[in-house]
Amino acid sequence: MKRIKCELMYDGSRFSGYQSQLNDRTVQQELEKALWKIHKKMTVKTHASGRTDAGVHALGQIVHFDTPLAMPADRWARALNGELPQDISVKRTEEVPDSFHARYSVTGKEYRYRIYRTPYRDPFRTSYAYHYPYPLDVERMKKAAAHLIGEHDFTSFCSAKTDKENKVRTVTNILFIETGNDLEVRFTGNGFLYNMVRIMVGTLIKVGNGRMEPEDVAKILADRNRQHAGQTAPAAGLYLWQVFYDN
Amino acid sequence: MKRIKCELMYDGSRFSGYQSQLNDRTVQQELEKALWKIHKKMTVKTHASGRTDAGVHALGQIVHFDTPLAMPADRWARALNGELPQDISVKRTEEVPDSFHARYSVTGKEYRYRIYRTPYRDPFRTSYAYHYPYPLDVERMKKAAAHLIGEHDFTSFCSAKTDKENKVRTVTNILFIETGNDLEVRFTGNGFLYNMVRIMVGTLIKVGNGRMEPEDVAKILADRNRQHAGQTAPAAGLYLWQVFYDN
Repeated sequence: MKRIKCELMYDGSRFSGYQSQLNDRTVQQELEKALWKIHKKMTVKTHASGRTDAGVHALGQIVHFDTPLAMPADRWARALNGELPQDISVKRTEEVPDSFHARYSVTGKEYRYRIYRTPYRDPFRTSYAYHYPYPLDVERMKKAAAHLIGEHDFTSFCSAKTDKENKVRTVTNILFIETGNDLEVRFTGNGFLYNMVRIMVGTLIKVGNGRMEPEDVAKILADRNRQHAGQTAPAAGLYLWQVFYDN
Repeated sequence: MKRIKCELMYDGSRFSGYQSQLNDRTVQQELEKALWKIHKKMTVKTHASGRTDAGVHALGQIVHFDTPLAMPADRWARALNGELPQDISVKRTEEVPDSFHARYSVTGKEYRYRIYRTPYRDPFRTSYAYHYPYPLDVERMKKAAAHLIGEHDFTSFCSAKTDKENKVRTVTNILFIETGNDLEVRFTGNGFLYNMVRIMVGTLIKVGNGRMEPEDVAKILADRNRQHAGQTAPAAGLYLWQVFYDN
């Protein structure tokens, strides 16, 4: 058996998220359907770096699977793209040792969140960015973000629907990129809890528009209470950008 | 009665084109539904600069309608956006004299066609550009395009499904903009026949990839035979960019 690592991108707008679900269209399902065809109707299980929610996009999702086929590792990208629907694309495939696991070997991830602030909606960005046409003080948002950097218990920034016990994560960097009416917030860390990026964004927006103070973020972290943080920002603005592994 | 001119943009990917049709979702239908609501269930007819096909986008489509309502002209954009679905957006509204007609007063139009040439498909551009990963010699395409400039009978570049008798149009400019792996072809003219831009693009691509000579385009025009031109390029790459009127 060979273990194949795939880097894939997908437009999340027409998926009910990454993970297979009965009756709903998911990325995992489409991927396993493509593998099933390539393996002449043999089921091949895939493992991803993590799930993404309905409407969330990915530029660099990582998945692995094991195959008995002799195909050279770099040919897998083309073979899979031949079977996949147009809103998923495999960018790269390579053979990896059995010790590699797309989920357990993760050392960090980068997510990006896109906000655009034109007065009118852009119909081309409905599914790809969050339209926020109200004032935002980005300097205040940066001050608030500084409180999130480092190792913290992120219970306040995690959906109650999580199945994770340990809510301690390390956020290594939060970067704000302003380009005209666009604001992109880039989050890097060793791992992110369920809805964590979207709740951080919702909270940063609340600081940016003046309904909360930057210092409140430290208190919210200490409270360990989801009710105290801001709203979960819409899925459409979120991109799983990169997954990091050792070596 | 006031005559209101609207400039609108729409993402054509989930519409069966601009013009109202039974059972299909169209831009005109959504627009007239919004007007019907604003006019307390009174039907208001709209007139557009022209139709766009299923999957074709617009950045600057122009529409007019007549209204008995006293609302200031510039408020119409916000009122309509409040009722329209997220894939249509009104950019601007203004009052115009009765002599203005969105279709009959047109003096010219600009269409843009987007091609991208990365080796792999970009799932985010499926509905927004034409993926063409094969060699294209843009210099040859420019030579071919030069034959299309000017006043010609464009019968060879018009779908047989047209209802227009007179196939003479003037193409004033064809511009090629290359940015990395992207190629945008911008067409300006006094008017364009049914599928004309997409057939010109399909023909230019045939010259660009060497299956036709630039000089063949002059012959194709003279032939006045749709069969002699290239294929109709996909709708997804096409944008109605601007409509021109006098003054």
